[in-house]
Amino acid sequence: MTLVAGLEYASVLVFALTGALVASRQQLDLVGFVFVAALTAVGGGTLRDLLLGAGPVFWIARPEFIMIAAAAAIMVFFTAHLLESRYRALLWLDACALAVAVPSGVGVALGHGHGPIVVLIMGISTGTFGGLMRDVVCNEVPLLLKQGELYLTAAFCGAGAALIAMAVGWPVSSALLVCAGITFCLRAGSLAFGWQLPVYKSRPPKA
Amino acid sequence: MTLVAGLEYASVLVFALTGALVASRQQLDLVGFVFVAALTAVGGGTLRDLLLGAGPVFWIARPEFIMIAAAAAIMVFFTAHLLESRYRALLWLDACALAVAVPSGVGVALGHGHGPIVVLIMGISTGTFGGLMRDVVCNEVPLLLKQGELYLTAAFCGAGAALIAMAVGWPVSSALLVCAGITFCLRAGSLAFGWQLPVYKSRPPKA
Amino acid sequence: MTLVAGLEYASVLVFALTGALVASRQQLDLVGFVFVAALTAVGGGTLRDLLLGAGPVFWIARPEFIMIAAAAAIMVFFTAHLLESRYRALLWLDACALAVAVPSGVGVALGHGHGPIVVLIMGISTGTFGGLMRDVVCNEVPLLLKQGELYLTAAFCGAGAALIAMAVGWPVSSALLVCAGITFCLRAGSLAFGWQLPVYKSRPPKA
Repeated sequence: MTLVAGLEYASVLVFALTGALVASRQQLDLVGFVFVAALTAVGGGTLRDLLLGAGPVFWIARPEFIMIAAAAAIMVFFTAHLLESRYRALLWLDACALAVAVPSGVGVALGHGHGPIVVLIMGISTGTFGGLMRDVVCNEVPLLLKQGELYLTAAFCGAGAALIAMAVGWPVSSALLVCAGITFCLRAGSLAFGWQLPVYKSRPPKA
Repeated sequence: MTLVAGLEYASVLVFALTGALVASRQQLDLVGFVFVAALTAVGGGTLRDLLLGAGPVFWIARPEFIMIAAAAAIMVFFTAHLLESRYRALLWLDACALAVAVPSGVGVALGHGHGPIVVLIMGISTGTFGGLMRDVVCNEVPLLLKQGELYLTAAFCGAGAALIAMAVGWPVSSALLVCAGITFCLRAGSLAFGWQLPVYKSRPPKA
Repeated sequence: MTLVAGLEYASVLVFALTGALVASRQQLDLVGFVFVAALTAVGGGTLRDLLLGAGPVFWIARPEFIMIAAAAAIMVFFTAHLLESRYRALLWLDACALAVAVPSGVGVALGHGHGPIVVLIMGISTGTFGGLMRDVVCNEVPLLLKQGELYLTAAFCGAGAALIAMAVGWPVSSALLVCAGITFCLRAGSLAFGWQLPVYKSRPPKA
């Protein structure tokens, strides 16, 4: 199994767990859990494959991705009540999912021979759209829009770091691991220590 | 006209009626009615065709689908005030639309030679995404997420029943009719008698 | 540069400005500004290209569109506080974006040889879906659903006027300019003078 395929499996599994946790916050039934988990798990990669327009969508070619998402949803349905804080678990699993989905998007776009801007966007889209659909469909405030947190910025810096690593001659696999590491560290630092970028304020401080 | 084509026309017509009813709840003008009706009517099938990636989207190949949706919207604009309860009409029309759209998705996916998991997902997606877009765009709580109702479950069981029927040797057309019947009965039973699956509770009852 | 390409550049630029203004209302950071601006700027055209299924999505073929959106977002991040009313600026820029995006969608669909219904829908979709995604993702009430305003109607009349102009023998470029003019005048008239169509009322006046 290639590194990109491994990242894809990991991102489907972990995003499915986050989807099921959001479904538990909405008190859905088991089929609802599987639906939200599958939507979250394959949403970002589906958008990526539709945009790249190269061959079938990944989970249509290999439907076992859907089975993985369904299994994860069923597991969460029966065990989520054991968690001390489902929201805390959701935030950290989402950070892990972001950190594997961004390099998977970067890797797929590179594999199709695209230039840096498209690679950057595919990394960010693959990493963020599954979670965005999950939050829009379930009427939650999208995690990626929460003020004063690094989310898109983590994805952007991770994908950018992969491009820089390759520009200085690193092999693709190392660049993807750097991408995952930087994405996770920035997002985790934001969750744990409150790292953030300055946000827009309508009235900037007087000089 | 084949059975699948007939189901497709019926689902466009009935989903358009539901879209126009939601537009009436938002007090839109006539063009807004047509827009929401068309979005609801072709939303699920459009997603299905984009995902399957086989030829043009169905309403681009046959634009009369859009005319049907527009005609339905105009009719509702001028007659909806005659309904005693627009919300009740919406719920039951939506149940009918679900019951024709799921087998249409199943039939199209079968026609492209896909395996059971993809067929199941295409049935569910075709049945649910039009209504989901309608509700997300119009800021309504998505019908498919309402707690304690069978909606996704009805679609899932209907599509699953079609697969089982074909596995035991029934012809496709009978399998699609079984699919429509089971989807409608489960959804209608939920609306009329409150049938439901157990939902997730954060604190399960002590043993 | 052809007229259609010029309209496309203008619509990406102006929609990106509106996206960044909505991002400022959400107090996002700089990367969030770029994300919402890019989503708004290319959302409608991306949907159009996916639906038409003809070749790659426009900004994948020419990634400079993303650079334009990013530059617009950065400019707004640092200058939006100079605006007297960001919401007023948003409404008027959105009207301008609508008026260039509708003819760009009409022009692209005509270029692919589609008939009038598909051309009409592509004009309306290209004009409205970028703004719709912006508003759904940012939890704002979609501009196109605001009661008692011409929005979809402006897009519909603009695209329809282009079709009529061509039916009476005008060249495509004139028809697209007519489309832009009518779309803008109707939307601007609605913003400035309160022009509107009658909306649906559940209880119509007695005869």
